[in-house]
Amino acid sequence: MAGYDASKFERPSVTVDVILFTVKDDDLKVLLVKRNVDPFKDMWAIPGGFVKIDESLEDAAKRELLEETNVRDVYLEQLYTFGDPKRDPRTRVITAAYFALVNAEKFKLKASTDVKDVNWFSMFDLPELAFDHKKIVEYALKRLRWKMEYTTVAFSLLPEKFTLTQLQKIYEIILDKSLDKRNFRKKIKALELVKEVQEFQEEVAHRPARLYTKNKKIGEIVEIF
Amino acid sequence: MAGYDASKFERPSVTVDVILFTVKDDDLKVLLVKRNVDPFKDMWAIPGGFVKIDESLEDAAKRELLEETNVRDVYLEQLYTFGDPKRDPRTRVITAAYFALVNAEKFKLKASTDVKDVNWFSMFDLPELAFDHKKIVEYALKRLRWKMEYTTVAFSLLPEKFTLTQLQKIYEIILDKSLDKRNFRKKIKALELVKEVQEFQEEVAHRPARLYTKNKKIGEIVEIF
Repeated sequence: MAGYDASKFERPSVTVDVILFTVKDDDLKVLLVKRNVDPFKDMWAIPGGFVKIDESLEDAAKRELLEETNVRDVYLEQLYTFGDPKRDPRTRVITAAYFALVNAEKFKLKASTDVKDVNWFSMFDLPELAFDHKKIVEYALKRLRWKMEYTTVAFSLLPEKFTLTQLQKIYEIILDKSLDKRNFRKKIKALELVKEVQEFQEEVAHRPARLYTKNKKIGEIVEIF
Repeated sequence: MAGYDASKFERPSVTVDVILFTVKDDDLKVLLVKRNVDPFKDMWAIPGGFVKIDESLEDAAKRELLEETNVRDVYLEQLYTFGDPKRDPRTRVITAAYFALVNAEKFKLKASTDVKDVNWFSMFDLPELAFDHKKIVEYALKRLRWKMEYTTVAFSLLPEKFTLTQLQKIYEIILDKSLDKRNFRKKIKALELVKEVQEFQEEVAHRPARLYTKNKKIGEIVEIF
């Protein structure tokens, strides 16, 4: 770092934004908030806000998420810092984006502070977004797909016990393509990603399906595709 | 993003830092500058400095690198943004770190602006570093090793034509372990990472070694180990 007197430099504002993905109703969804203030009042945006002068970036991300959407206790990962000089019409704002995969069932959404609504939206049918949030969300989707192919991150979207059909469905939804059932199962088993549980899923219409549980830590690196 | 009036928030300073790695004299090296100003005057640090209010983070990183070290035309990748509130003794400074792998032969280093010296240092024998730069450099090394194992980034450290021994050496130096020659060659060939050229390396002491060139784009994802 250069050693000039820091006070001589005009300072930018710094924000955090949080991209939360979930799979719900057989669709990949992202959490958005409806803005209650200018700029972009009444438009949908990624939850986030200004970093306080004495809090870390990650603490700021967690605080904004909780304040605006009532979502808490999420494991966040830093995604990328977006610093285009013109990305905010007010002033120079640099934003550190975080992202996470969650099980939507765990949360009771509630809009508060400076947002008037909060909801899950299909990644494949997004409303117009404030600022450069479309670009940020698309970057997050790229990272998510990459992580799906090279790590065990998919498990974070499943209950503790799941069928192989459920696991395959998660992949198909996020990668937005259908996968061959036999090849998929062969790969999952060859990589020892899951282990059998001595239980079956009760379903009226089908014969009971074997339940599995994860055999690797979430996020571990394995080349799935 | 929250929609409060941005001017109501106390703003942090924002810097960029650049971690440049090279392999030189059979060692993994990182580029450091000797500070000419307080704080940490006379200590070694990663090159970097304050982002101007109207320049992008990446432009700032390139400018600081050029100003302080005379290194130019480097492909930079964003590494991570470090925002611990106490990481700079002066004031709140958030830094976006960038990193790159370069061929050291291409550059003529020259210290200028606010640094009094610039040099390559062994990653395995670093001097004490200013700020939290040790943590940043260690994080960069982790990322570098990860990229070596999962991408073709190693090619950026080699001349256009190289022997398989040179390629293996790059891996051994960065991963800091020796690799089995037969297994290494089998993997490289199975993954079709390289292709033969109709030339041999001239070396007096050994029989001539076949030269290869890369068969994949730099940074392409392949699971090497």
